[in-house]
Amino acid sequence: MRNIKLTIEYDGGRYLGWQRLGNSDKTIQGKIEAILTKLLGTTTEIVGSGRTDAGTHARGQIANFKTNSTISLTEIGDVFNHQLPRDIVVKKVEEVPERFHARYNATGKKYSYHVWNNSIPSAFERHYSFHFPEELNLDLVNQACEKLIGTHDFIGFSSLKKTKKSTVRTIKELSITQEGSLLHFTFVGDGFLYKMVRIIMGTLLEIGTGKMELASIDEIFENKTRSEAGMTVPSHGLFLDEVYYN
Amino acid sequence: MRNIKLTIEYDGGRYLGWQRLGNSDKTIQGKIEAILTKLLGTTTEIVGSGRTDAGTHARGQIANFKTNSTISLTEIGDVFNHQLPRDIVVKKVEEVPERFHARYNATGKKYSYHVWNNSIPSAFERHYSFHFPEELNLDLVNQACEKLIGTHDFIGFSSLKKTKKSTVRTIKELSITQEGSLLHFTFVGDGFLYKMVRIIMGTLLEIGTGKMELASIDEIFENKTRSEAGMTVPSHGLFLDEVYYN
Repeated sequence: MRNIKLTIEYDGGRYLGWQRLGNSDKTIQGKIEAILTKLLGTTTEIVGSGRTDAGTHARGQIANFKTNSTISLTEIGDVFNHQLPRDIVVKKVEEVPERFHARYNATGKKYSYHVWNNSIPSAFERHYSFHFPEELNLDLVNQACEKLIGTHDFIGFSSLKKTKKSTVRTIKELSITQEGSLLHFTFVGDGFLYKMVRIIMGTLLEIGTGKMELASIDEIFENKTRSEAGMTVPSHGLFLDEVYYN
Repeated sequence: MRNIKLTIEYDGGRYLGWQRLGNSDKTIQGKIEAILTKLLGTTTEIVGSGRTDAGTHARGQIANFKTNSTISLTEIGDVFNHQLPRDIVVKKVEEVPERFHARYNATGKKYSYHVWNNSIPSAFERHYSFHFPEELNLDLVNQACEKLIGTHDFIGFSSLKKTKKSTVRTIKELSITQEGSLLHFTFVGDGFLYKMVRIIMGTLLEIGTGKMELASIDEIFENKTRSEAGMTVPSHGLFLDEVYYN
């Protein structure tokens, strides 16, 4: 069977998230599968690298599907980009070895989170960044980023209940770049727990305003309780930028 | 009487343009005047630096209004940003000399036009740039920009019928910067005729693909006929960035 890999960009604003939900056509997976099923004449499921929450965006979500059809890659791409709504774009269609699996083979991910840090809101950034009007001490935020980098049990920074699966993850990069009032936070790691990026972001912002102490990061690692971490920031500032494979 | 100057940012996507149209609340001017009239308790009109078309955005539209009210500038700003829809933002509220007039005193304007130049569309740029999938020869486009800079009769690059008013304008800057697939065209001039930026843009793009010759710019200046210029590109790629005053 042929195995086809898709690189997908989406503006998640109108959707309930990546994962198909019954017959709702308000998910990205559902939209893509509906077109494939019609195109290939047989129910076709795609495997994504992972879910994204309602409202979260992606610049490089990866998915794959199997088919016996001999349809060309160009034709698949053309059909997607004619039939998908304009807030979902298939950027690349590739044939990959049959063993490739978008979720199991992913070795890491890159996310970014955008903050509009100005007392005045922005008409243009309102869909793609979190408006945070309070002043931030970026020195402290950078020190907090340093503490989070590395291999830790991140359960205190997730919405997970206790689980038998490992909640140890490695953050390889957590950095900030600034463009005027826009702060871009970049997260690179081997994997991220449920809501982990958004809870870390909330914690970073509360450290930046002085509401939380820098030392509370060590305490959350030690005590492993979510209640001590910061707020969960809204999903519309979050982008899945890239999925890594070997 | 006090004279208050406003600096306004808006995402024009949902609006019929700047200028008030009867009782429609689908104009930027209408939205702002409705709030002012309620706040000040008397019908209040604002003067904008100029109109923007339906769908066109602004990062720095300027307007002014007169009032006898003693309300503070901070309160005016707060009321706007609580009551305006999130796609209109009043960035600055200032008290100015009574003779200041947002339209008559404007000495120049800066516009930008954004083009997404890639065969694959962008989910994020779709509201703020014109998707132009054809390959462009940017050398030719830059040469065309050089020809347009300076003082010329731009009537052939506007939608105006013959008029007694002067259609001579000076373009001081017309430059291109590139960020990946995104092309930013910057226009600075003493004033722009109706649809002039969008018709110049259409002409530049048609020169870039080879559909029009570089020499046609000289012909349009000479013959003064709109029919020889390029298409009018869509309004959603256009931003009024700044209005200049002495």
